[in-house]
Amino acid sequence: VNSLSIGIFDSGLGGLTVMNAVAKLLPHENIIYLGDTANLPYGSKSKEAILHHCKENSLFLQSLGVKLIIIACHTASIASYKQLGNELRVPVINMITPSLALLESVPKENHIAILGTSKTISSGIYQKMISEQFPSCKLTSIACPLFVPIVEEGLACHPIAKVVAQNYLSPLKKEKVDTLLLGCTHYPILKETIQEILPFASNIIDPSYSCAKQAKKTLEERNLLNKKNNKPIYRFFVSDNPERFKSLAKGLLYYPINLVSLANPSLLKKS
Amino acid sequence: VNSLSIGIFDSGLGGLTVMNAVAKLLPHENIIYLGDTANLPYGSKSKEAILHHCKENSLFLQSLGVKLIIIACHTASIASYKQLGNELRVPVINMITPSLALLESVPKENHIAILGTSKTISSGIYQKMISEQFPSCKLTSIACPLFVPIVEEGLACHPIAKVVAQNYLSPLKKEKVDTLLLGCTHYPILKETIQEILPFASNIIDPSYSCAKQAKKTLEERNLLNKKNNKPIYRFFVSDNPERFKSLAKGLLYYPINLVSLANPSLLKKS
Repeated sequence: VNSLSIGIFDSGLGGLTVMNAVAKLLPHENIIYLGDTANLPYGSKSKEAILHHCKENSLFLQSLGVKLIIIACHTASIASYKQLGNELRVPVINMITPSLALLESVPKENHIAILGTSKTISSGIYQKMISEQFPSCKLTSIACPLFVPIVEEGLACHPIAKVVAQNYLSPLKKEKVDTLLLGCTHYPILKETIQEILPFASNIIDPSYSCAKQAKKTLEERNLLNKKNNKPIYRFFVSDNPERFKSLAKGLLYYPINLVSLANPSLLKKS
Repeated sequence: VNSLSIGIFDSGLGGLTVMNAVAKLLPHENIIYLGDTANLPYGSKSKEAILHHCKENSLFLQSLGVKLIIIACHTASIASYKQLGNELRVPVINMITPSLALLESVPKENHIAILGTSKTISSGIYQKMISEQFPSCKLTSIACPLFVPIVEEGLACHPIAKVVAQNYLSPLKKEKVDTLLLGCTHYPILKETIQEILPFASNIIDPSYSCAKQAKKTLEERNLLNKKNNKPIYRFFVSDNPERFKSLAKGLLYYPINLVSLANPSLLKKS
């Protein structure tokens, strides 16, 4: 069991920021990454549709043999965490708990801004949890629905990313936000752009490392860490357009990506 | 048969521009509209995936009883027109043929710019057809991958639409483009924004009316026009998020939209 892979899924490229963190913290763990590119973006879908895709993704990863699953997408975590946690045979890590854990180190009178997809922001889950656990913080939340398409279209370094980010974030300039929580795994890919626009935001929180720590802790507690000091094996699957994913993923990973396979989801099996 | 509906499908809201044109030109025809919102956007998907969705959409419309199907999406037309034309029982209208028909009225030495999704532009189909049929025209093609998410996120009137359009279209300012072909059914929703940025483009071509004319001609030839002078019935279906679609569609139609139903696609049947 210990040499089984960690399974990570997201709608597309965003979860690679989590995979990077996991690969750094747990350098001997094998990883299977699944990008559900046939169904991206998740951020504007109904809860039922997202839950359906998350179940399919998890069952696919389980069918390949994984010892832990990371839902590397905030929107998907909100829609599916409880149900997947109950239904799957393996432990499940989500993005919300690690994000909140990170906020514990933030000074109590901070002004925190949460950035997320429309679905994540309108769910109100962060707003509720933060106002309960950190009642003295000031809180602003901003939906940035074009950030995911920008990343998925390979435009993160295009000037258009900056004009869009300026439009979303300029209201924060007056408010002197101290802490920015990147509440979508795609957003760390735009971190430099965001930083340029809000240089006074001293603390830009990317929950991927905190998520990796939680994965490590869970594996330790269950005695599931890989005890072999092998070079790890990383495998990549997508539900549509493997070549497109490969070319876009190349710039985002700390290690080479050679093969991206089609995940044979229900979609393509039927046609 | 004559009182059967015209079926129109698109990935989401874009095809409503075509529906408007059809409803104006054929005011006694019943229409069934299907927005495949579970699978939007089509513009970055593989040809196989798009073809699969187009087949499912067409079979759904056929199952409700339609006498003609309009593929109200350029990307979907390119991916599926030939195959659907061969496989379906009813005549099929696509977006490419009407777009080219419109160009016949353009002066021969014109500089034409085509705007489309990444998939449409990289297919090269317009570039090939235009250089064959209108060899003396100068041709520029520009992929505008964020226009569809902007419309589908309800941001067409948001300042962000303008900054994104400026970024895509400013290269055309120097080139004195005469004619702009809107090669995606979502783009007419951004027509005013585009016009503001390129006031010298005297001719902004929206193929929806030409498409409606082709639908009319096909129905006439087959003696399928509705002979009753009833008030037409318009029905709307989507494959995900009916309430969201309804609220966004309201601003785009010339007539009220009361009910949007879930299309019960294969996706949701399985979960």
